[in-house]
Amino acid sequence: MRVHGTPYRTVWMEDGTVRLIDQNRLPFEFRVAECADHQATAAAIRDMTVRGAPAIGAAAAYALAQAFREAGPGDPWPYARAARATIEATRPTARDLFHGVERVWAAASAARDPVAAAGEAARALADESVESCRRIGEHGAALVPEGARVLTHCNAGWLATVDYGTALAPVYMAAAAGRRVHVWVDETRPRAQGARLTAWELAGEGISHAVIADNAAAWLMSRGEVDLVIVGADRVAANGDVVNKVGTLAKAVCAREFGVPFYVAVPPSTFDASVADGSAVPIEERSEDEVHYQTGPDESGALRRVRVTAPGSAAHNPAFDMTPARLVSGYVTECGVFRTGELPAECFGAPATA
Amino acid sequence: MRVHGTPYRTVWMEDGTVRLIDQNRLPFEFRVAECADHQATAAAIRDMTVRGAPAIGAAAAYALAQAFREAGPGDPWPYARAARATIEATRPTARDLFHGVERVWAAASAARDPVAAAGEAARALADESVESCRRIGEHGAALVPEGARVLTHCNAGWLATVDYGTALAPVYMAAAAGRRVHVWVDETRPRAQGARLTAWELAGEGISHAVIADNAAAWLMSRGEVDLVIVGADRVAANGDVVNKVGTLAKAVCAREFGVPFYVAVPPSTFDASVADGSAVPIEERSEDEVHYQTGPDESGALRRVRVTAPGSAAHNPAFDMTPARLVSGYVTECGVFRTGELPAECFGAPATA
Repeated sequence: MRVHGTPYRTVWMEDGTVRLIDQNRLPFEFRVAECADHQATAAAIRDMTVRGAPAIGAAAAYALAQAFREAGPGDPWPYARAARATIEATRPTARDLFHGVERVWAAASAARDPVAAAGEAARALADESVESCRRIGEHGAALVPEGARVLTHCNAGWLATVDYGTALAPVYMAAAAGRRVHVWVDETRPRAQGARLTAWELAGEGISHAVIADNAAAWLMSRGEVDLVIVGADRVAANGDVVNKVGTLAKAVCAREFGVPFYVAVPPSTFDASVADGSAVPIEERSEDEVHYQTGPDESGALRRVRVTAPGSAAHNPAFDMTPARLVSGYVTECGVFRTGELPAECFGAPATA
Repeated sequence: MRVHGTPYRTVWMEDGTVRLIDQNRLPFEFRVAECADHQATAAAIRDMTVRGAPAIGAAAAYALAQAFREAGPGDPWPYARAARATIEATRPTARDLFHGVERVWAAASAARDPVAAAGEAARALADESVESCRRIGEHGAALVPEGARVLTHCNAGWLATVDYGTALAPVYMAAAAGRRVHVWVDETRPRAQGARLTAWELAGEGISHAVIADNAAAWLMSRGEVDLVIVGADRVAANGDVVNKVGTLAKAVCAREFGVPFYVAVPPSTFDASVADGSAVPIEERSEDEVHYQTGPDESGALRRVRVTAPGSAAHNPAFDMTPARLVSGYVTECGVFRTGELPAECFGAPATA
C-alpha cells in the first residue's frame, strides 16, 4: 500500500539488511527500522516492531536468509541451526513464523548454494504472501456490500501482512470497487493495535471508520449496527479452531448471540494441519506491563509512557485466545470463502503458487 | 471503608459543603474535592469526580439540599426547581440520580422547613444507602465460597456507593469472614474504572486481584478460571433488564456461553419500576476523547494525558449497554438473592428503612 504516496511493503530485504515499518512507533511516527543481521530481525519480531502473523512469517524467513549470509565460508549449517532456534523462540503462537522458517530451511537444504537459495525462498514467500492476501481481498469483497458496517479486532490489515492484509483486504477491495464501507475498529487492548494501526491504515486509505472501546462491540452488535465481523488469525487448527488476538473469542460469542456473521481471513501459511484442534496451540503470555502502561504523545507531541492501572496492583496478560470452529461463519481464503469442514486441502499449508 | 487507616464515605455534607473523594485523581492521588454550592456538586457529577450509580444518587440528593440552603429567605421553590433541572441534566442513565432528587424534593415539599427537611432527607438517603450495601454484601457473600475467583467489570465497589459497594460488597464480606477470594478486574475501557478504582480498592483491602484487559475475560471464562461474575448496575428495569457500564453485555453473553453464573448487585434505588424493559433507558454517549486519551503518571510521577488512538481518526463512545434479564443468573439485593421474575416488590424503589 502507499504511505504519503510512496508504495511500501511492511517488510523487505535489501543487500542483506531487513527493513520493516516500525509498528511500535505508528501511528505517531512513521519510521523504517533497519535490521543488519538475523539477531536484530529476531529482536524486532520479539519486541513487536513487526507483528501480525503473515508479516512475522516473512520477517522470520528473511531473518533465516540473513543467517545463511552471515554464516561465512565453510559449513553454514551449525550457524543456521542456532539462528533458526533464535528466530523460532521469538513468538510461540503464530503459525506463519514456523512456516516461514521451514520454507527457507527446506529451500536451502535442497540447494547447492544455500545462501542464494535461502534469499530467493524468503523473497518468494513474501511475494506469495502478497498475492495470497490480494486474492483473499478479492474473494472476501463479495461479503462486503454497499454501505456495509464491518467490525474488526486487532490489526489484520496490510501492516500485519507483507501487503493488502487479511481481514482488511476485503474492505480495501470493496472500497476499490466503489462501495462505501464503514469499519468499527476495536481498540484492542492491551497493545491497542486497532486504535493505533488499523485506524492509521484506514485513515490512509480514506475509509470511514471509528475506534471503539473493546467493550462497545457487543452493544453495537445487539443494536444491529454491525453487518459482519472479519478478523485475521495467528493459527487455524485442522478442525477450524482459530487462535487470534485476545478478545476475538468474545466477539465471536457475541456475534453468534446477535446473529452477526463472523469471518476469519487467512492465508495458507496460517493453517496448521499438524494440530488437531485449538487446545494444542500454545498461548503466549506477555508482560503485565502491557496492561499497566500506555504510550502516546502528550500535548507537546513528545511520546510519554504513562501508568493506567493502580500502582502496586498485578495484571495478567494472555496475548491470544481460541475461538472454536463452531462460532466461525466462514473462512476467507485465497481459494474462496469456505465453511468449517469444507476447507479444501490446499488451504493447509500449500502456498498458492507452489 | 478506610483510607490509610481513616474511615471515609465516598460523599458527605458538612455545613452546606459537599465533600467527595475525587475519583478522577485516583489511584494516583487521594484528594477530597469540596463543592461549595449545588452547581459545583452538579459539575462534580457531570465530570465524574463522583461516579457510580448509588454515589451519584447521594451526591445529587446533597446537591438539591444545598440548593434549598442557597435559596435564601422567601420562596425557595423557583430556585430549587432550577437547581433540580441542573442536577438532573448531569447524567441521564443512572436511576439513582433521579431517585435521590425525588426523595429530597418530596421531603422538602411535605415539610414546614424545606431547608432542614432537604438536608435531613439527603443524609437519611446516604445512611440508608450504606445500610443497603452492607446487606447486599451479607446476602451476596453466600455466593463467594473459599477460593472463589470472581470477575467484575467497572467499579461497583465502595467508591461507587456511599460505602461498602454493590458488586464488591459480597467480596469484602466473604473476605471478612476469612475466605480467600481472588478478583479478576476488568480494566473497563475507556475510563478504566476497573484498573484505576477497583484495583485501588482491592489493594487497600488486601484482597488478591489482577487487572486484565477487557478482552481477556472471555478467555479466562472459557478456561474455567472464573467461578462467578458480579457487576453493579446503573438501572434495572421492571422486567429485570440491566443497564450498566459498557462491556457488561459482552461479559453476560460470554458467561452464559461458558456456564459461569452472572450476578447483578443492586440497591433499591437502582430499580426503576417505571420502565418496562431496558430498551426505554437512555444510553449516555460521552465524548470521543475518553477513547482517544489516557491520563496517568509518567516516570517522574507527573500526570500526563497521552493520545492512544491514531491522530485524526474518529471514535464512538457509548457509556453503557443493556443486558437482557434472560442472561442474569440472579440479583443480589438487600432482601436476598433473587432470580428474574422473583424480585419482591420492595426491591423496586422502596428504601430499606422507609
